[in-house]
Amino acid sequence: MTPQMKVLRRGCCSVCSNHIPPACIQTHTYTYTRVLPLVCLMLDPPHSPQLLNCLTPEETAQCRHGLYFQDGERRVDYVLTYQVKKPSSSRARRHSSRFTDNALTRSLRRTRPQARSAKPDPEPGPQETSADHHEDDKRFRREEFEGNLREMGLELEKDEDGKTPGVGFVKIHAPWNVLCREAEFMKLKMPTRKVYEVKQSSSVMEKINTFISKVTDPLHPNVEENRIENVKHLSHPFSREKQHLLRSEMAVTYLTLFQLLYEEWASYSVFYKYQPVGLIRKYFGEKIGLYFAWLGVYTQMLIPASLVGVFVFLYGCVTVDDDIPSMEICDSRRNITMCPLCDRVCSYWTLNSACGTARASHLFDNPATVFFSIFMALWAAFFMEHWKRRQMRLNYEWDLTGFEEEEDHPRAEYEFRVMQKSLKKEHKAQKDYGLFYEAVNVVLYFVSTPGVGVRGGGVMNCHINVAVECCFQIGVTFAIVFGVILYRISTKAALHMSSNPTTRSNVRLTVKTTAAIINLVVILILDEVYGAVARWLTALEVPKTDKSFEERLIFKTFILKFVNAFTPIIYIAFFRGRLVGRPGSYLYVFESYRMEECAHGGCLMELCIQLSITMLGKQLIQNNLFEIGIPKLKKLIRYIKSKRSAFQEEEREKKLQRYETDFFLEPFAGLTPEYMEMIIQFGFVTLFVASFPLAPLFALLNNIIEIRLDAKKFVAELRRPVAARAKDIGIWYNILRGVAKIAVIVNAFVISFTSDFIPRLVYQYMFSPDGSMHGFVNHTLSYFNVSHFQNGTAPLEPEILGFSVDICRYKDYREPPWSPTPYEVSKQFWAVLAARLAFVIVFQNVVMLMSDVVDWIIPDIPKDISVQIHKEKILMMDLFMKEEQGKLQVLDNLTVDGEKENSSAHSPQLRPRAVSHTQSNSF
Amino acid sequence: MTPQMKVLRRGCCSVCSNHIPPACIQTHTYTYTRVLPLVCLMLDPPHSPQLLNCLTPEETAQCRHGLYFQDGERRVDYVLTYQVKKPSSSRARRHSSRFTDNALTRSLRRTRPQARSAKPDPEPGPQETSADHHEDDKRFRREEFEGNLREMGLELEKDEDGKTPGVGFVKIHAPWNVLCREAEFMKLKMPTRKVYEVKQSSSVMEKINTFISKVTDPLHPNVEENRIENVKHLSHPFSREKQHLLRSEMAVTYLTLFQLLYEEWASYSVFYKYQPVGLIRKYFGEKIGLYFAWLGVYTQMLIPASLVGVFVFLYGCVTVDDDIPSMEICDSRRNITMCPLCDRVCSYWTLNSACGTARASHLFDNPATVFFSIFMALWAAFFMEHWKRRQMRLNYEWDLTGFEEEEDHPRAEYEFRVMQKSLKKEHKAQKDYGLFYEAVNVVLYFVSTPGVGVRGGGVMNCHINVAVECCFQIGVTFAIVFGVILYRISTKAALHMSSNPTTRSNVRLTVKTTAAIINLVVILILDEVYGAVARWLTALEVPKTDKSFEERLIFKTFILKFVNAFTPIIYIAFFRGRLVGRPGSYLYVFESYRMEECAHGGCLMELCIQLSITMLGKQLIQNNLFEIGIPKLKKLIRYIKSKRSAFQEEEREKKLQRYETDFFLEPFAGLTPEYMEMIIQFGFVTLFVASFPLAPLFALLNNIIEIRLDAKKFVAELRRPVAARAKDIGIWYNILRGVAKIAVIVNAFVISFTSDFIPRLVYQYMFSPDGSMHGFVNHTLSYFNVSHFQNGTAPLEPEILGFSVDICRYKDYREPPWSPTPYEVSKQFWAVLAARLAFVIVFQNVVMLMSDVVDWIIPDIPKDISVQIHKEKILMMDLFMKEEQGKLQVLDNLTVDGEKENSSAHSPQLRPRAVSHTQSNSF
Repeated sequence: MTPQMKVLRRGCCSVCSNHIPPACIQTHTYTYTRVLPLVCLMLDPPHSPQLLNCLTPEETAQCRHGLYFQDGERRVDYVLTYQVKKPSSSRARRHSSRFTDNALTRSLRRTRPQARSAKPDPEPGPQETSADHHEDDKRFRREEFEGNLREMGLELEKDEDGKTPGVGFVKIHAPWNVLCREAEFMKLKMPTRKVYEVKQSSSVMEKINTFISKVTDPLHPNVEENRIENVKHLSHPFSREKQHLLRSEMAVTYLTLFQLLYEEWASYSVFYKYQPVGLIRKYFGEKIGLYFAWLGVYTQMLIPASLVGVFVFLYGCVTVDDDIPSMEICDSRRNITMCPLCDRVCSYWTLNSACGTARASHLFDNPATVFFSIFMALWAAFFMEHWKRRQMRLNYEWDLTGFEEEEDHPRAEYEFRVMQKSLKKEHKAQKDYGLFYEAVNVVLYFVSTPGVGVRGGGVMNCHINVAVECCFQIGVTFAIVFGVILYRISTKAALHMSSNPTTRSNVRLTVKTTAAIINLVVILILDEVYGAVARWLTALEVPKTDKSFEERLIFKTFILKFVNAFTPIIYIAFFRGRLVGRPGSYLYVFESYRMEECAHGGCLMELCIQLSITMLGKQLIQNNLFEIGIPKLKKLIRYIKSKRSAFQEEEREKKLQRYETDFFLEPFAGLTPEYMEMIIQFGFVTLFVASFPLAPLFALLNNIIEIRLDAKKFVAELRRPVAARAKDIGIWYNILRGVAKIAVIVNAFVISFTSDFIPRLVYQYMFSPDGSMHGFVNHTLSYFNVSHFQNGTAPLEPEILGFSVDICRYKDYREPPWSPTPYEVSKQFWAVLAARLAFVIVFQNVVMLMSDVVDWIIPDIPKDISVQIHKEKILMMDLFMKEEQGKLQVLDNLTVDGEKENSSAHSPQLRPRAVSHTQSNSF
Repeated sequence: MTPQMKVLRRGCCSVCSNHIPPACIQTHTYTYTRVLPLVCLMLDPPHSPQLLNCLTPEETAQCRHGLYFQDGERRVDYVLTYQVKKPSSSRARRHSSRFTDNALTRSLRRTRPQARSAKPDPEPGPQETSADHHEDDKRFRREEFEGNLREMGLELEKDEDGKTPGVGFVKIHAPWNVLCREAEFMKLKMPTRKVYEVKQSSSVMEKINTFISKVTDPLHPNVEENRIENVKHLSHPFSREKQHLLRSEMAVTYLTLFQLLYEEWASYSVFYKYQPVGLIRKYFGEKIGLYFAWLGVYTQMLIPASLVGVFVFLYGCVTVDDDIPSMEICDSRRNITMCPLCDRVCSYWTLNSACGTARASHLFDNPATVFFSIFMALWAAFFMEHWKRRQMRLNYEWDLTGFEEEEDHPRAEYEFRVMQKSLKKEHKAQKDYGLFYEAVNVVLYFVSTPGVGVRGGGVMNCHINVAVECCFQIGVTFAIVFGVILYRISTKAALHMSSNPTTRSNVRLTVKTTAAIINLVVILILDEVYGAVARWLTALEVPKTDKSFEERLIFKTFILKFVNAFTPIIYIAFFRGRLVGRPGSYLYVFESYRMEECAHGGCLMELCIQLSITMLGKQLIQNNLFEIGIPKLKKLIRYIKSKRSAFQEEEREKKLQRYETDFFLEPFAGLTPEYMEMIIQFGFVTLFVASFPLAPLFALLNNIIEIRLDAKKFVAELRRPVAARAKDIGIWYNILRGVAKIAVIVNAFVISFTSDFIPRLVYQYMFSPDGSMHGFVNHTLSYFNVSHFQNGTAPLEPEILGFSVDICRYKDYREPPWSPTPYEVSKQFWAVLAARLAFVIVFQNVVMLMSDVVDWIIPDIPKDISVQIHKEKILMMDLFMKEEQGKLQVLDNLTVDGEKENSSAHSPQLRPRAVSHTQSNSF
């Protein structure tokens, strides 16, 4: 949190916690530059027009209008809005109050906890929106609230009769001394005038670094701060007493900041450049800066991954002609007769008709894939480490090293709930229900070992609800996936019945594609539904703080969206084709539909199709179309709405204050959707990468657009977000780790169970007569005696191939009809299964070990940073010792002058207790 | 680091980094109490005799002798010793200088880095111990060093002509103002006078807590600080300006501190009590306090584990009679003829002679074991979490919350090495060798992605050396294990040849036990060797800082000792009995010895014997005998040595100063051995717990003694260690996590491969005709036609059972002789193997998931602590705001009085820049 924001929040919320806060938003004011590097302000002439970064000079004068108080001197730092009385707009009022208390009901209890707890206010909170809230009551609260803001030292100016009907604005100005006070309390670190040299470790390294920076020079954004500096300014927590030490030359740099961001960041023409992360942080705050830094690192790391992915794919393309199994399948001389793919209407078919699929499968199912999934697991570990180091570096560069994450303050909803509860307790006797949970609580307390606490059991009920609800939602996803499966089975059966031969030959492709598209549409719809459900569920839980609210919301949204996106894929990868049964005793769904089989050559091909359609579709439609389209749509709606009002649009636009224009922008909805999108993409990139090596490439292409898209959105489409400090990306890092862990296991299973990698190896080293792959296809096919078909399942046209069939083949490891135990699983089956399982164990543990080794070998703190931190400590020590000596000298002078009484009255703290060494023991 | 120690180190080391430090030790002075709670001193009358905590009153006067400077006023805070010139003792001198620079060569470069780097001293460092160091040179350095100490404000007194010949003492006194200065620089947190109430969350909880504290009251040590307090003192970083705020009533409590520790901690009679961790921390510092707190938590957590372990064992005992497989084995009516256990000399035997072993195996190989290993995996996760929370609580109670671990300073050896290198570069042209590593370095730099640095390649060479060396050591371990195996095989063969029937019947037991004892002895010897090797290897690597030295040493020691302790066990668990071959084609070592088989009923029984002997033997001999015996022995040796000198012992003892007496104590060698012992024990408790459920019980019993043993050692046997601050147990936590992770995998393999759990399940659900276990034994035995014995391997006495044998049985899943593929592994083999592997996957992932869930559900910071931290922040805020207003008022008064000039001369910083709100913009 920047000091300014902090001030505002504290002021804002010391009252509103128990009451309905007045509807308040912050508008998109361009004054942030002066808040974050506090010292800029000191050099700014108060009337300097350059500080306004409107895009065109003729707009400047106009903008300036809304950026200052009426006196033209005090700048507007923050704007609150509220609904002015309008009897018919009760719904709108409720809406705006709800959406804003999120941003403002923090930092409660900070200023006057005792006073507040002394007068429990039985008034209902924001959730209860019954009609008995009169306008007077609201005004009274607003005034109390504003009074609190003034008490904190802020200066307010009201603008109720603006051009925007029904909306009142309260402009807030934070004076310099308030900013200083807050900065001091926050121990905000600031660069001082003291500089030191950053030395390169060795001459060779230095040369290399110079070379690298020369080569990558065109990749850097055209921003002044990016030139490589050999000196670094020492940072020190802000203190008014030490203002003379602080650096004050920074204001110059940020004069054209907004313009710079617009040109060097939010533009497609600079897509190949690094982002100006420092500038983003200065304008939007650390939290948003970290998001874009993370996005940049992720995108950058995708480059090697997609390169390797493309190579793996090309390897598949090149070696497709040397692949013995697919050669054997395509060999028309080997005329292997296969059992029919469906009951009655399908007939026997020859294996070489699956030639195309087999060759296509090889593109994704070759030994390089195994290498690639190991590579990607290590890549994920590497990416984590790289990000950790980058984060550390940013923390250092942004002077966050000493910053401790604020313990969050209780949310208004939580406070309200607690209040409600205590009221209930007073009025009623406790019911059995309450006692039960109290009892559960006690039991839990005893079960947990001493010292290990258990979460408050009072919200047990809610937790159970939420768990049930989540399970229900996941159930819905499963049901839908099952529905799509049924669709596929039935459509296939129906299409098979068609007499048109071309239709029949296209059956597979049609069904696969339509099913994948249906899946995609369902995923897109459910994604939106699940977002809403997660929000609703989290609100139901009433988490105590905003942070826990956000974390729980994220976690739930993640679970639901993840399940939603990956269930159909997991079905195809691991379940499809496994539960088919065998000729003569197929498994049936609803006693009429046979379960789906995979094409010859494993399910990997279908998995690949499903993956690419889902991933590309999701990215194209959801991320880009929705992200561009919906804000535009919303803006249009607002525009149309405002047209209906009495004012003429053209007239208004000219006279509108800056904050009034910004009021029409979309409010900032948090970084969660942005992160979520990327995490799901990360899932696509890592989870099934064994089956789709091109996923990183698609992700890379998407992200290059995504960065600039997001940048444009933040710069031009949204109200300016409240800047927030953050040291890390929070729960997202853990989620990333979790996905990377799951990815290892999923890839192990994909390689061993979905691909044909293991059966081939087993054949080659255990069963092959000459140690080659020749005969592999024959080995994987079992024999079936067609006389063993169940009644009514034998094909209607048995002689479609031109000869009568006695024995047909099917893909499975089962005993032949002539063995003593016909159709039972064979020894080969168990051997292959054991090999598959062994591979999973080996792969999982080896890759996890390697990831851990990567994690362990790469130090979390970059070496140069740790050297610099160390250097800074020494310099600080020097400064401290110098000051120490200075103090002693001042003291000595004073003692000599005999002005002791006089001075100690003003500054009793400055006088060291021990005057000389020998006397020190007497204290 | 406590402030006092800090002072000393800094002073001590500002010179010694490049030179040989004068031999210096700290003696066991009883003055620590006054250092840590700085304020005690303020209330202490300087001559108060109570502060000396000598054990008996008559000793007080005597002790007092050595505790003060000659003036009797300034206390001795730290003592340095050095070797006084004695031409013949050059070896001893070197020794003592080496062992002490460890403790003192820290905090280099802090005071005068520029000065030091400006004059590169070509003098060789401590490693070069050639004879050209004259006494004069040493004296000169010592004086320079002492001068530096004085410059830092310390006061020194020399005692070269003490009663101890050849040793000079430098007594150091840190005056109050130096302590204050350092405490301020360190931002040492101190309790203030400001108190606040710690409220219980609810009335029910409060009652429960009161009840619990009543019940556990006798378990708490009889120490005043332990009473439950409802108020907490607000902590604030020490600052001389705010001394008036600090609490000053603490001195009273610690008057009898040493006595208390002796009675309430270092005594076997209080073995059932909690440790007085707060006192330990106050006397020994946070690092040692954390070790004992950790040991306490571990021991406490062992109680439930050993209880469950005992229950599991009892379950085995109770159900042994219902176990169908062992009943079938013991059934004398089923006369299954088994194949001979060795070539020629052994003959056929009947299965029911293995009855005893089978019944014993059941004690450890039953379904409860599976449950127990899952339980222990969760227990480990729980233990980690519990410790994390406890650590957090201690951090809070010990006011370490804001403390950041010091970046460690380069070690003298490292500095010396760097210097040597740069000298070499100046004098010689770079050789190819150097260029090669430079090139490697460059390559590595490019391979690593930008931003991901690589460790300095200059020490590559060393790393390779170390890796090779480590591998060699591990190889030695393997060789020894292999040797023991050979011993077992050959002894068994030899004993089998004996004609004495009783000898032959005792063969198995004798061989097993002697082999286990040999293993134990080897482990004990190698343990000591490996400790030395690890130390040597780490010194070879020349790590930069002490911290990294310690971490690398620990890591290497851990790897070597871990391999050493667990290799024989791993051999028995996973390799023994697997590489046997089959009758007619056994595997032979050196073409004459058959590989070992396990007894019927799996290798679990032997594993269990090996485990218990190793664990118990290690604990009894190494931990307790060595820990008590060796210090006593060393003391005796020193005593005898000193007897040889000219002084009469009795005379000396009376007149010896306190620090001279302490000089004869063993120096403190760090916590590494203590932790290491416990970690290896943790390995025994978790790694193979599936095969030995009593391990936690034995560990518990050992630890109860261990705590008091260590306590006695620290209080009475060792020189008082230098107190060090620490927030956590460092690398040990990661090692613990690693062991717990490995434990999951090892247990999965033990259950599935070593025990008969999976084959039984597979039999019951796949092959059993009636779903029961009847027939299991028969199912696991394959058939062998005795006519297929290789030449010369058939038994000499084939009719020893009284009938001629055609078919004998052996334990394996192979086809019978009459199948088309005789003696090949059967389908059952693959099925069982697949089941085993599937179990490993399921077990590993489920248990890991559960551990992660435990990790995730239990919050790292206990709720009450986070509430208190939050409360403290609010209170701090209040204080800050009050002070703010106070300052403004003072300022206003000053302005009115017109004394502005006068006051601003003394305290220019105190005057806020902004006087009124409206003017603030002009700055």
